Amino acid sequence: MADYRKMWESLGMDLETHDQLCEVLPQAFGDVFLSQENRPEAMDYYNFVIAEIHGVRPQELIKAQEEGKKVFGTFCVYVPDELIFAANAIATGLCGGSQFWVPGGEKVLPTNTCPLIKASVGARLDRTCPFFRIADMYIGETTCDGKKKAWEILGEDVPVHVMDLPQMKREKDIKAWAEEIKELKKVIEEFTGNKVTAESLNESIKLINNKRKALSRLYECRKADKVPISGRDALVISQIAFYDDPARFTQMTNKLCDELEQRIKDGVSVVKEGTKRILLTGTPLAVPNWKLHNIIETSGAVVVCEEMCTGTRYFENLVDETKTTVDEQIDALANRYMGINCACFTPNTGRIDDIIRLAKEYKVDGVIDVNLKFCSLYDVEGYTVERALKEAGIPVMGIETDYTDNDAEQLRTRIGAFIEMIGTK
Amino acid sequence: MADYRKMWESLGMDLETHDQLCEVLPQAFGDVFLSQENRPEAMDYYNFVIAEIHGVRPQELIKAQEEGKKVFGTFCVYVPDELIFAANAIATGLCGGSQFWVPGGEKVLPTNTCPLIKASVGARLDRTCPFFRIADMYIGETTCDGKKKAWEILGEDVPVHVMDLPQMKREKDIKAWAEEIKELKKVIEEFTGNKVTAESLNESIKLINNKRKALSRLYECRKADKVPISGRDALVISQIAFYDDPARFTQMTNKLCDELEQRIKDGVSVVKEGTKRILLTGTPLAVPNWKLHNIIETSGAVVVCEEMCTGTRYFENLVDETKTTVDEQIDALANRYMGINCACFTPNTGRIDDIIRLAKEYKVDGVIDVNLKFCSLYDVEGYTVERALKEAGIPVMGIETDYTDNDAEQLRTRIGAFIEMIGTK
Repeated sequence: MADYRKMWESLGMDLETHDQLCEVLPQAFGDVFLSQENRPEAMDYYNFVIAEIHGVRPQELIKAQEEGKKVFGTFCVYVPDELIFAANAIATGLCGGSQFWVPGGEKVLPTNTCPLIKASVGARLDRTCPFFRIADMYIGETTCDGKKKAWEILGEDVPVHVMDLPQMKREKDIKAWAEEIKELKKVIEEFTGNKVTAESLNESIKLINNKRKALSRLYECRKADKVPISGRDALVISQIAFYDDPARFTQMTNKLCDELEQRIKDGVSVVKEGTKRILLTGTPLAVPNWKLHNIIETSGAVVVCEEMCTGTRYFENLVDETKTTVDEQIDALANRYMGINCACFTPNTGRIDDIIRLAKEYKVDGVIDVNLKFCSLYDVEGYTVERALKEAGIPVMGIETDYTDNDAEQLRTRIGAFIEMIGTK
Repeated sequence: MADYRKMWESLGMDLETHDQLCEVLPQAFGDVFLSQENRPEAMDYYNFVIAEIHGVRPQELIKAQEEGKKVFGTFCVYVPDELIFAANAIATGLCGGSQFWVPGGEKVLPTNTCPLIKASVGARLDRTCPFFRIADMYIGETTCDGKKKAWEILGEDVPVHVMDLPQMKREKDIKAWAEEIKELKKVIEEFTGNKVTAESLNESIKLINNKRKALSRLYECRKADKVPISGRDALVISQIAFYDDPARFTQMTNKLCDELEQRIKDGVSVVKEGTKRILLTGTPLAVPNWKLHNIIETSGAVVVCEEMCTGTRYFENLVDETKTTVDEQIDALANRYMGINCACFTPNTGRIDDIIRLAKEYKVDGVIDVNLKFCSLYDVEGYTVERALKEAGIPVMGIETDYTDNDAEQLRTRIGAFIEMIGTK
C-alpha cells in the first residue's frame, strides 16, 4: 500500500486512531474475500480499491479540489448525483460501515441509534475518515428520524444542505421532490460557482445511467443457474459504486461483466451445484460491512441479490435521457428517484412487489430480511414484508444485527438452520 | 362507577382483559392523586372523568354516533380538531399511556419501538380501549418513523387517513401543510356527508381556541410563587383535554381557574415554601402515565410546566379568528399548527427558545428532559437541548424511561439527587 500518511495528516485526521483501522482492514478483507476460490479475474480492480480505500480515491478528490472542483459528500440513494456532476463537482459516499466508528458517534448520539448513523457521525467527529475530511459540503435528507436529527449535529462542523424527502408518493409529492432538487441545484450552483445547463445535466444523467446499466448487467449475471460471482464480490462492487469515479467504475464493471458472461457461457460457477440461493432485503450494508454475506456464504448458500440501497435500489430504473430543458430533466430525476421503494415511505407496498419479483427473477430458495438494530422503519416494515413473503410461499427469515461480532455465532447457527430448512433444488 | 359492561360488550371489547385494567386503575389514581393534600375543589370533575374514563365519554360518543355523528380518533397535536368539529363530527384522543397495552403492540411491532406507539397499537388490537373501538376513522400523521409505519398495520383494521407533515418549516412547508389540511377536509366531508363552511369552521376555531385559552389560564396560574395546583393535577387535566367534549372541558377548566386565581390572591399553595420548581420537557405523557410527575412531586419538588404535547405544545398560540373564507381559515390553521415545535422538524431550534422562555416565565429551578425509550427524535434532540440549557445556566437532567415500573427506584434516586443539587430559592 502506498504511503498516504502525509495526505491524511494534511487532512487533519487523527492518524493514531486511523492507524488502528488500517491495521485490521486488510486482514478482514483477506479473510472474507481473498480466501474465496475461483474468483473472477476482474475482481483485481476492486481488491485494489479496497486495499487503498482511504488513499487512492481521496488523493484523486484532493487533486480535483486543487483544480478548483468541489466535493459533495452524500449518505443516501435519494440524492441525485447527476446534479453534482453537472456542476463540474464530484459526489462521494462517506464512511459508515464499521463498528470502529460507532463509539465516536455514541459520544453525541443515543446508543439506541442505528449503527450506520452512529458510525457516520463517529467517523466525522473522530477525524478517521478521509472522505468526511475532504467533502466541502454534505447533502443530507429526511429519510429517517435518526439521520434527520444527526444532520443538526454534523451541521455544526461543516456545511450541510438537507433535502426534505416527502413521506408519500402521491403526484404532489413527486412534484415536491422536484422542487427539492431545484433547490439543491441552486445550492450547488452557488457553492461551486458553476451553472448546471441542460447540456451538462444531460451528460451527467447519461454518466450515472451508464453506471446503473453496468450494475444492472452485473446483477443480471447473478440470475444465472451457475452463479459466476459470489454475493460478497457483488456486494463490495455495490459498495465501491458510492465512492468511485463513475466513468471508471462503469468501465471496470463492464469489463468484469464481460468475464462473467463468458463464465455463464462456459457454465462456470463459484459455488457447487445445489447451493441454496439467497436474496437479502433490508437496511443498507455500507463498506466494510460484509458480515452477513460472509456468514451466509460460508454456511452453504450464495447471495444472488440484494434488495437494498447497496443493491437493486441503487441502480434499478434509469433517468429519462430524452429531456432537453433543465426543468424537464429535473422532473425526470424526481420521477426516477421517487421510484425507489424505501421503508421511509408510507405506504411502501411497492417494496413487497419488488422483493417478490426479484425472488422469482433470481430464482431464490429463500429471503433473509436483515435489519440494522434501531432502524424503526425497516423493522416495522419487516412485519408486513415477511408476512407477504410467507403468503407467496417464499421462505423468509428475519434478522436483526449491528456492526459488532457479538452475535456472529448466533447468526451462524440461525442462518445455517434456515439454509438447511429451505427446499433443495 | 356505573356499569358499562354492556356497552363494552357491544363494542366488541375483550371484557376479561379489560377488567384487569379496570381493577388497577382506581388504585393507581388514588395513590397518585387522591393522596394529595389541599387539592382544589374543582378537581372533582377531573376525578370523575378519570374514574369513568372508559365509560362516560365513550357513552356520549356512542350516543352521538346514534344521532348520525362520526367520531375521528387522533394521535397527535398536529391534527386540526377544528376541521372535524366543523363537519359536525367529534375528535377524540385514543389510548396509549399504559404498560398494560404494550405487550399487545409488541405482537406486531418491534420491541425497540416507543411505548406510546406499542401501547396504542396494542390497545386497538387487543380490543381493550373503547375509544379505539368507537372511532369510525383514525387520523394519523408522519411525525415519526414508528408512528408512520404503525398506521400501515392499524390501517388493515379500520379506515386510517394519514397526513404528511413536512419535516421543515420553510414557507413552502407551511403551504404544503395547508394542502394536507385541505385534503383532510375533503376526507372528512366525504366520510361525514357534511360540508365544512366558513361559518362552521369559524365556530369550531373559536371552540378550540377557547379550550386553549382555558389551558393557558391554568398554566398561567402555575407561574405564581405560591403554586395553587400540583403538577400531577395539571397533567391529568392536559391529558383529559384530548378526550373531553371541548366546550364542557373549557367550562370546567375555567371554573377551576377561578378557584386557582382566588388561591393565588389568598396566597394558598399546595406545596411548602422553598419547594423546587421543575419544568418537564420531552415526549408526551398520555393518560394514565403519571409516573414521572408522581416521583418528582413525592421527592420534594413540584412540576410547574410541561413543554410537551401534553402541555404547552397543545395550547400555545391561537388560530386567527378573523378569517372569513375557508381557504384563509385553513391557512390560519396551517400557520398555528406549524408553530408547534416538535422534534420531528429539522432544525427545531424554536423548541430550545421555548424551553428557555418557559423556564424563566415559570421561574423554575431545573429542567428534566424526559424521553420515552426508543424515541429517536427527542433522544437525539436532547443532546442540543441539554447543552443549550447548560449554556443558559439552567440546571438540567436527562432521563430515559418507559411505561414499566422497573426503573422507578433508580429514577427516584436520580431525581432526588437532582432536586437536592439545584439551587434553593
